[in-house]
Amino acid sequence: MKAKVRLYVDHPLGAGQSVPLSRDQAHYLFGVMRLAVGDPVALFNGRDGEWLTTVAEAGKRGGVLDCVEQSRPLMPPPDLWLLFAPIKKARTDFIVEKAVEMGAARIVPVQTDFTNSERIRQDRLQAHAVEAAEQCGGTFVPEVTDLHRLDRLLADWPAGRQLMFCDEAEAGAALTLEGAGPGPWAILIGPEGGFSEAERKRLLAQPFARAVSLGPRILRADTAAVAALTLWQVALGDWK
Amino acid sequence: MKAKVRLYVDHPLGAGQSVPLSRDQAHYLFGVMRLAVGDPVALFNGRDGEWLTTVAEAGKRGGVLDCVEQSRPLMPPPDLWLLFAPIKKARTDFIVEKAVEMGAARIVPVQTDFTNSERIRQDRLQAHAVEAAEQCGGTFVPEVTDLHRLDRLLADWPAGRQLMFCDEAEAGAALTLEGAGPGPWAILIGPEGGFSEAERKRLLAQPFARAVSLGPRILRADTAAVAALTLWQVALGDWK
Repeated sequence: MKAKVRLYVDHPLGAGQSVPLSRDQAHYLFGVMRLAVGDPVALFNGRDGEWLTTVAEAGKRGGVLDCVEQSRPLMPPPDLWLLFAPIKKARTDFIVEKAVEMGAARIVPVQTDFTNSERIRQDRLQAHAVEAAEQCGGTFVPEVTDLHRLDRLLADWPAGRQLMFCDEAEAGAALTLEGAGPGPWAILIGPEGGFSEAERKRLLAQPFARAVSLGPRILRADTAAVAALTLWQVALGDWK
Repeated sequence: MKAKVRLYVDHPLGAGQSVPLSRDQAHYLFGVMRLAVGDPVALFNGRDGEWLTTVAEAGKRGGVLDCVEQSRPLMPPPDLWLLFAPIKKARTDFIVEKAVEMGAARIVPVQTDFTNSERIRQDRLQAHAVEAAEQCGGTFVPEVTDLHRLDRLLADWPAGRQLMFCDEAEAGAALTLEGAGPGPWAILIGPEGGFSEAERKRLLAQPFARAVSLGPRILRADTAAVAALTLWQVALGDWK
């Protein structure tokens, strides 16, 4: 029995658990996907792995799924944050999607000197992360935080977390992760206009920060995010 | 004098060269961007590097730019092809854009057993590659070829070109580029539905092919393209 539909729910999953469906979920499963009682659905909640469930009750405004067995264990990503400066809506959505696929544990939009956006729709970005996890077969959904100011984030930087900082101005400098150690990390992708001189100076002065080059070409922020996550995952993460 | 506008042209660029503008280019420079005689424009043609030019004549239906000096040398990417199976329009556009940014020399859409598209708009994808090069500061525009059937491509594979083949089914197999040699290469990204069993067998049997894992998560084709290009550029390309 293989589920064709994969859904994120907030409910606990486990042997003997019954999962009530919201109106939207019921509409999607029974109205759009035309599932009926007995049909399989894969569920994950970001905590209990993926569970195979079957439809126990199907209604127009609700329904119930019964857990059958765990189909995949929880596979949390490494303790890696992705910090990025949101610019245009479509590119921001893409960065969130890519961060989920590439295995970031937390997604932190940051406001830099050259970022225009004063606010983000955190709820929309979080929903986007859920959707990306549904589609990429993930069992974990990274938290998308509210917008943070980069200067404050650096001032309150958590002890022990290292920072890989990708700066287009460093292009060609051939800075790598070689010799970097494991542990909690964050990757910071600059805005497409680059960091300000003050930000660059401040970043370079942080003992926890390391500038890394992403090659001789200028990359868009979404491309840079995937490339940086690849470098990190191969050197220090779960691609090893 | 720094140009705010950067354009691809087909005309030769060099000391003493004057570059005539098409109607569309004249409209963009003088109508949309409001440039006037004497204003700077950066031009590249994929062969002669980037040239600083100035507007010599500005008309509604045409104009002339005069080359002043070379502002950047030609920086061709390594001899790397990106082969990918086009699916949805937006994702296909993205893969072309990413391949240009990441430094592929040639972009080859391939038809696989699980690819639905029978044809592509080669001219549209090529225009997209030009636009990506304009925006990422590149001086080179990779050729986008017509759609090729994967089986025929493999049957006529050019001698001496190695193939890195990214297969979601290999997820977690920890296959890397370690020990791989330099020279001409190609990267093949599978369709989102994966390769067929016959294709997988055929690929694995090729002496020039090497399967590489892109980590434990399932990646979309456009994410896989950037991740694979990153792995290759760091191991064998110009990110070293």
